[in-house]
Amino acid sequence: MDFSSKLLENAVNEVSRLPGIGKRTALRLVLHLLKQPQEHTKYLTEALSVLRNEVKTCRKCHNISDTVLCDICANPNRNAEVICVVEDIRDVMAIENTAQFRGVYHVLGGKISPMEGIGPQNLQIESLVEKVKNGEVKELIFALSSTMEGDTTNFYIYKQVAPYEIITSTIARGISVGDELEFADEVTLGRSILNRIPFENSLNRG
Amino acid sequence: MDFSSKLLENAVNEVSRLPGIGKRTALRLVLHLLKQPQEHTKYLTEALSVLRNEVKTCRKCHNISDTVLCDICANPNRNAEVICVVEDIRDVMAIENTAQFRGVYHVLGGKISPMEGIGPQNLQIESLVEKVKNGEVKELIFALSSTMEGDTTNFYIYKQVAPYEIITSTIARGISVGDELEFADEVTLGRSILNRIPFENSLNRG
Repeated sequence: MDFSSKLLENAVNEVSRLPGIGKRTALRLVLHLLKQPQEHTKYLTEALSVLRNEVKTCRKCHNISDTVLCDICANPNRNAEVICVVEDIRDVMAIENTAQFRGVYHVLGGKISPMEGIGPQNLQIESLVEKVKNGEVKELIFALSSTMEGDTTNFYIYKQVAPYEIITSTIARGISVGDELEFADEVTLGRSILNRIPFENSLNRG
Repeated sequence: MDFSSKLLENAVNEVSRLPGIGKRTALRLVLHLLKQPQEHTKYLTEALSVLRNEVKTCRKCHNISDTVLCDICANPNRNAEVICVVEDIRDVMAIENTAQFRGVYHVLGGKISPMEGIGPQNLQIESLVEKVKNGEVKELIFALSSTMEGDTTNFYIYKQVAPYEIITSTIARGISVGDELEFADEVTLGRSILNRIPFENSLNRG
């Protein structure tokens, strides 16, 4: 693309470095900002700068937080002995939305992925194992996505905490509520049969 | 969405005000920035701020430009008597890419659209008519999109410049090069038959 303005070209290049945003979309976004009052751009850039420069992560669970201890970790009504291991803040938000979990979280910040050069040392695994060692934990719930990377990460952590007397569990995989059986993939359907639960347990659940 | 951080929520809200970007995409983009080195966010926000605060439009054609006169208007090899009327900078870039046009442009900055509250006074129409009045123009080429708004804008300008002795033309509408006839819509196909051109004219063209 040939731009008539270096400033425009520069802005488009920077925006198109964001994931999933190509040059055309970037140009559309930048031209939109130019049509809006100057304050829009000011609010946008300030919000991003302030976030990037002042972002904190909770000392305990490593979730993004404005305070040293996040709201969940600081809440005395949450059971700090049950820790749900997740990848990032989006998973925390998703699980919190269900209102079914009263424990706390541990945000790893990613999954072990040799392809992307992410090893255990790049994630918050050591601090998790530390919590287990200190006897703070009764149960670890693995809630990573069920991909190769997720399974590897689960297994790596499982090996690390195996010597200690804690319960480890993983969230149930199975047919989604409301889904038709005939359209389910065979791996999921197979797992949901192997890991079937007593019928009474399925009653009176949200 | 419940955010664990006000800063994060604020940034996501600002990003999701951009057109075509919802809350989920905004969260993904913001989390991406948080994973990148701090400089990425700095470059991005600086590029946007600088552009928004220092953007200039060419004094003559109103295209976005870093200088008082844009490169095209300042080029003595371009024929300033043939003016192509376009909506915005993207159209200029598209036409420049064809390398088929040696005249200059006039960027209206939009189309007349009563639905969106855009009237002729919001566009750069007066300055265009002024150019015609001053006898600077030999031909006006209308190159707006062929929508209701585009046609209205064409006609409005046409009426304004009708009293003056200039040629007005509009870019050809027809079947795209490489397109199958059977899949063309009937309006386009009909127009391309009505506005057929001598066969020799279709030879030796880029």
